[in-house]
Amino acid sequence: MNKRPLIVTCIALVLLTIFAEAKTVNVKLLPSGIDATPYIVEAIKKCKASKATKLVFEKGTYHFTPEFAEEKYLFTSNNDEGLKRIVFNLTGMKNFEVDGQGSAFIFDGFVTPFLCDKSTNIRIGNLSIDYKRTFHSEGTIVGAYTDSLDIQFSKDYPYIVQNNKLTFTGDKIIGKDNAGEPKRVIYPFWHLLEFDINKREPHPFAGDYLNVQNMVVKELSPGIVRIFYPRLKGNVGNIMVFNASDRINSAITITDSENIYVNNVDILHAGGMGVVGQRSRNIYLDNFNVIAPKGRMLSLVADATHFIGCGGEISLKNCKFESMMDDATNIHGIYVKIIELISPNEALVKLIHYQQFGYDFLFAGTKVEITEAESLIPYQENKVKKSVRINKEYTRVTFEQPISPKVKVGDVVASTQEYPDVHIKNCTLQKNRARGFLLGSRGKIVVEDCYFHTHCAAINLEGDGRFWFEQSGVRDLTIRNNVFDNCNYSFMLGLGVIQVNSGIEESKRAESRYNRNILIENNKFRVFNPCILSMYSVDNLTFRNNTIEKNNDYVLSDWMKNVDLKPFMITNSSNIKIEE
Amino acid sequence: MNKRPLIVTCIALVLLTIFAEAKTVNVKLLPSGIDATPYIVEAIKKCKASKATKLVFEKGTYHFTPEFAEEKYLFTSNNDEGLKRIVFNLTGMKNFEVDGQGSAFIFDGFVTPFLCDKSTNIRIGNLSIDYKRTFHSEGTIVGAYTDSLDIQFSKDYPYIVQNNKLTFTGDKIIGKDNAGEPKRVIYPFWHLLEFDINKREPHPFAGDYLNVQNMVVKELSPGIVRIFYPRLKGNVGNIMVFNASDRINSAITITDSENIYVNNVDILHAGGMGVVGQRSRNIYLDNFNVIAPKGRMLSLVADATHFIGCGGEISLKNCKFESMMDDATNIHGIYVKIIELISPNEALVKLIHYQQFGYDFLFAGTKVEITEAESLIPYQENKVKKSVRINKEYTRVTFEQPISPKVKVGDVVASTQEYPDVHIKNCTLQKNRARGFLLGSRGKIVVEDCYFHTHCAAINLEGDGRFWFEQSGVRDLTIRNNVFDNCNYSFMLGLGVIQVNSGIEESKRAESRYNRNILIENNKFRVFNPCILSMYSVDNLTFRNNTIEKNNDYVLSDWMKNVDLKPFMITNSSNIKIEE
Repeated sequence: MNKRPLIVTCIALVLLTIFAEAKTVNVKLLPSGIDATPYIVEAIKKCKASKATKLVFEKGTYHFTPEFAEEKYLFTSNNDEGLKRIVFNLTGMKNFEVDGQGSAFIFDGFVTPFLCDKSTNIRIGNLSIDYKRTFHSEGTIVGAYTDSLDIQFSKDYPYIVQNNKLTFTGDKIIGKDNAGEPKRVIYPFWHLLEFDINKREPHPFAGDYLNVQNMVVKELSPGIVRIFYPRLKGNVGNIMVFNASDRINSAITITDSENIYVNNVDILHAGGMGVVGQRSRNIYLDNFNVIAPKGRMLSLVADATHFIGCGGEISLKNCKFESMMDDATNIHGIYVKIIELISPNEALVKLIHYQQFGYDFLFAGTKVEITEAESLIPYQENKVKKSVRINKEYTRVTFEQPISPKVKVGDVVASTQEYPDVHIKNCTLQKNRARGFLLGSRGKIVVEDCYFHTHCAAINLEGDGRFWFEQSGVRDLTIRNNVFDNCNYSFMLGLGVIQVNSGIEESKRAESRYNRNILIENNKFRVFNPCILSMYSVDNLTFRNNTIEKNNDYVLSDWMKNVDLKPFMITNSSNIKIEE
Repeated sequence: MNKRPLIVTCIALVLLTIFAEAKTVNVKLLPSGIDATPYIVEAIKKCKASKATKLVFEKGTYHFTPEFAEEKYLFTSNNDEGLKRIVFNLTGMKNFEVDGQGSAFIFDGFVTPFLCDKSTNIRIGNLSIDYKRTFHSEGTIVGAYTDSLDIQFSKDYPYIVQNNKLTFTGDKIIGKDNAGEPKRVIYPFWHLLEFDINKREPHPFAGDYLNVQNMVVKELSPGIVRIFYPRLKGNVGNIMVFNASDRINSAITITDSENIYVNNVDILHAGGMGVVGQRSRNIYLDNFNVIAPKGRMLSLVADATHFIGCGGEISLKNCKFESMMDDATNIHGIYVKIIELISPNEALVKLIHYQQFGYDFLFAGTKVEITEAESLIPYQENKVKKSVRINKEYTRVTFEQPISPKVKVGDVVASTQEYPDVHIKNCTLQKNRARGFLLGSRGKIVVEDCYFHTHCAAINLEGDGRFWFEQSGVRDLTIRNNVFDNCNYSFMLGLGVIQVNSGIEESKRAESRYNRNILIENNKFRVFNPCILSMYSVDNLTFRNNTIEKNNDYVLSDWMKNVDLKPFMITNSSNIKIEE
């Protein structure tokens, strides 16, 4: 990709045929090594100008770099904000389809493949997304000692060691810094996790090492680095994954959009999530597969999919969610914190988590709940009359009704305007770190015919007003006809295969019923871990007609054996019907 | 500043009196410890709404934080781009004055004090600017060994040492990171320079240590850190300054504005420059003083003033430029590099230096020179017919005239539309690192009645098309009635008191005459360094009626003695008249 063609003059080489009737723009395969970005930027402009409905690629491999991509500052929740370079910038487009016809799209550098922003009726299909240099790095453990490991890196993960610090880089020098020294693209990391070389999944009961970016290292020979960190452990022959610090470039970002279809898309890698949708309605993923290619342990550096403040329908069908560094999906709203009660009707609120900054959702007319942070119990429903955005963190909100006198500074506000109905069917989840599905919509949710072999809980009901500030709490959740195959082989983020992990204070769990109306039926649980359900503050749960098969595929360590694990660990709940 | 008042409700406490005739908004002194930002944001809104002409502060100390400041993405050349928090956001204002009446403005955190953007007839006066926690850090050298120093930090420079890495921080925990660990504001550093404790200026002949951010350290006891770096040297009792990596928050940013007056303003510190002006006309600084407060070696982390692509007049009168980490001023244009010659009239051009990204200056009608990068000799004058911005780096330019056939990829383009006339009078320059005035305007420039005691050259004629990409080259420069007192006591960036340091290739210097028409008269040179003028590629220079006094105040080291220093080292030049 060093070869830069005469980028502007050559655009004519790509046949952009516009058929008057079909309104299709065709992209011909480019000579090998050519950066396709300027052609695509031009092609999309042509599509907009001619109101074309399809951009169709001749089947083949296309390369994209940030060099000539369009720029836009994006605030995407649960991702890192910033001025992004975007290749397929579909902002404002309607009734448009990108058809890769089976093409492979290879990105190189800090570039976002697809953006739908205020887009309607968009189809993205028949293509795969990968990156030449991944945002994370992987190395083989070739030596293990007390508090240190020797890691061997292939040429796929260029790095430099300077002053005993490890820095992952791109493969070329891109200029000079202010000291006149060679400058490279830097791929920051902050997290280590050991993966099992045979199973190609997180090593059983291996834990995260977080904030390790400043660990001391020593280069033993080119490609082999000794890394030192307190209590660092690993097994020779396994792979250590050095995960990216940031979520800069998700593969497909959908914001303020409607009716988005992603079909037959394989995500082999991206520097963020696979699909992230926010403030959008009707997102349909079919045969959307997140998978690590041969030779790599990790697919994505974060979640496969993530949906924030969406409505309408979310549909995940026939998908593979494999090898990500985070969950298969997380569907939730956002809580802002009340910083000041200004007047009976007015409050100053703040987005707390830095990856939520700029997520604006309190507009005139938005229905909200004002909720106790400790219990997640709403004091009241209310409606926004007026809001003034101060900056990406603060908004001053005027409500239609007086704020309940019980509300105090530190409590939280979330939208109740709309929740998505969620249908997840026939998906496979395995080889990833962390959880499977984090379900936090109050719409109707069905999870069926899926296969789960997840590192932590397969299904997790999260939500809290103190740390992640993600609004959750299900009202109608059906989990049926799934296979849960030795899920939660880490105990890293809770004990159950299906669990509640909401941030409700212990003292408030007796009165809180954050999750309600859950039906778990006709599933098969293959378990080495005796804990199937770990829950609290639930109302109306039925567990029936499920099969439980016990095995000894994983060996619990001593401390785990000392935890009094039971199949159904349910506290502070009502109307629980367990039919084993 | 931890104390957050009821920020919105209290605004009424500040008397914002609007006199119908005088159109003055008065700001009353706030209770101690109150963040004044939301009041000022509100006050400026009121000023805009009422078309007030003055914002007047009751004399006192005011504190500002980024918390409730306005946000704007700024591309300011020679600074770091980004989404900034701005307190005095004077965007679009006309005929407006901020009068501090002698007040002290103390900022805390990553916040920009003043922004003039498309502003006209603005006066900022009678105030001082400082920061509670400086963007750089300073420590006393308490031990010196081979390749290591022990540094003692006061409580003014909070830091953490983790895994043998030194990180400077703010003084409080501001939340949690994704690992749930305490999060602090981080003040990155990259540069070390030793300052003499008695002279309060860079230690004689001490050099920069750059890119030291990853050096290995060991905390010996609270407040005392041993730092290791190859060939690191320092003298016990002196101060080591750890300079900021970035130029994030200049004190006063002026962009696309006209008639800006800054009078009676003291800058004690900012996380960038003092005044930076770009694409603006008529900027007048009078009694504008950059000075380090007692107890600190450094004032600003970068230049005192900097002007890019300006026109009209630039006037610096009765100013002190002291203790900055960079030059007193730098006045220049920008060269973009030709990446592709698209057609006889079209080229693809690129901003190369990352701190110039987003500096757009090629608009329809802009007169330009197309210049050979190696010699800085223009091939031709031309004019922009049309330009299309691709992103912050690339622009596609159509010229009115065909591009000279001699022009090749790698050559550069700069604006010749307008250059400022520069008048610098009665200014004092001392105690800073690097140069005094970098003069790169082709307008009339007069520097008179100034006192210079600068670490590198007092007056430097720079400009290059290969590294900094700063367009320069004087046409009418008069330097008269100044005192040059032992300037260039570092030899770090050239040998002369007054020098040319342009990036012209050796092989091209014989034909290039980048700087022209220079008169140096009636100055007094006090010199330990025999080299007064170090120049090349100059046409028409007269040096007359100057006094030269030699002294031995600084002792040259052995290698310096081996450089054959002469008073007038002028090569590849024409019409040079030296009257000693």
